[in-house]
Amino acid sequence: MLFRQLFDQDTWTYTYLIADLDTKEAALVDPVIEKVERDFKLLNELGLTLKYCLETHVHADHITGTGKLRELTDCEGIVPENAQVACASRLIKDEEVLKVGAIEIRAIATLGHTDSHMAYLVNGDRILTGDALLIRGCGRTDFQSGNAGTLYDSVTQRLFSLSDETLVYPAHDYRGQMVSTIGEEKQWNPRFVGHTREQFIEFMNDLNLPDPKKMMEAVPANERCGNVLIAK
Amino acid sequence: MLFRQLFDQDTWTYTYLIADLDTKEAALVDPVIEKVERDFKLLNELGLTLKYCLETHVHADHITGTGKLRELTDCEGIVPENAQVACASRLIKDEEVLKVGAIEIRAIATLGHTDSHMAYLVNGDRILTGDALLIRGCGRTDFQSGNAGTLYDSVTQRLFSLSDETLVYPAHDYRGQMVSTIGEEKQWNPRFVGHTREQFIEFMNDLNLPDPKKMMEAVPANERCGNVLIAK
Repeated sequence: MLFRQLFDQDTWTYTYLIADLDTKEAALVDPVIEKVERDFKLLNELGLTLKYCLETHVHADHITGTGKLRELTDCEGIVPENAQVACASRLIKDEEVLKVGAIEIRAIATLGHTDSHMAYLVNGDRILTGDALLIRGCGRTDFQSGNAGTLYDSVTQRLFSLSDETLVYPAHDYRGQMVSTIGEEKQWNPRFVGHTREQFIEFMNDLNLPDPKKMMEAVPANERCGNVLIAK
Repeated sequence: MLFRQLFDQDTWTYTYLIADLDTKEAALVDPVIEKVERDFKLLNELGLTLKYCLETHVHADHITGTGKLRELTDCEGIVPENAQVACASRLIKDEEVLKVGAIEIRAIATLGHTDSHMAYLVNGDRILTGDALLIRGCGRTDFQSGNAGTLYDSVTQRLFSLSDETLVYPAHDYRGQMVSTIGEEKQWNPRFVGHTREQFIEFMNDLNLPDPKKMMEAVPANERCGNVLIAK
């Protein structure tokens, strides 16, 4: 398996390239529109065929690169069930498994940051957690029908039930950290450790964060698969 | 082995944490002074003992975190032979091997970006290339006694002689790429592919890049192991 983490400096977003080096099939998770040229070049240099663009959720902080990548390749654009993305090739359900060559990518419903959100477990040993679980943090829950109690349940019941050794790859990090493990987050994540569900809800509801800079542009564009022209 | 890549957004610098999870011994390669608190916290959370701070070279774009880490821990600060760093715990020579628990870190002299520079081969399968070889690029050669011909020889003779599967982890990337392989760089690095040594020298000498923003501050500070107070 080829597994590459890629970074968009402007929005602190991680995109993931997953590929089977035997069949040359590949998937990109959470591509960013401004980085499509980089990602497409890398796919070509590595001789890969893009089969899927997968979204963990409808992003509020950047526009997806899926629309552009669907123009450049024959990939399918796949978004979580219940997402308001009519242009998606198809929706993916909780526990559904996608195959990329011999690689298994299992969707795990992890709602709460938004009301449609999947984490993706890759070959059973690493999980792309989107904005549900971040390294020593978690996604906010105050827009896009977010719900703090639901996020608490998603993280503590769905993600923290994975083995401690499972590698955690988030959709963002703001401190230059790239990977963690479920064991580390269970022990050190300050949003969850030592807090009851009620305390977590109170904390999240009191955050009073400003809206993401690109929210008004990104959400409608992402509901159109990143097609900026239509969104405007 | 635990292997973590860490990022400093201000200077686009990668720091590497390498640790033996049995003995709990650890090394940091190219730590950044502004990120010492983050790195020290991570060491503590993971229960690691910092044995070495290793520099690939005397940096011109950021101040090393080694001085601060030597105050916080009992680590040794190790720099390449010929570096003008009198305060280093000791110098490391070409082909010298350091042990971090059972992990072997082999120094490979890769001069040219500066006149003292080591790449570090970790357990034979991944190489931290410093500023000698970057992903689809290489370090500049126009200051700190850099020499384009020497860099060409270092990359093509010392690094490209490693197996194609060797993972390449550079000290910087400016496009959000984190890892490559020797095989990929031999095939796709535009600084080296299809260019003779003479063409490379001509190209590098014609780059006319501005000095790094922090150069006047960083070089003298790094010659004092990152001790900013003395350097001023």
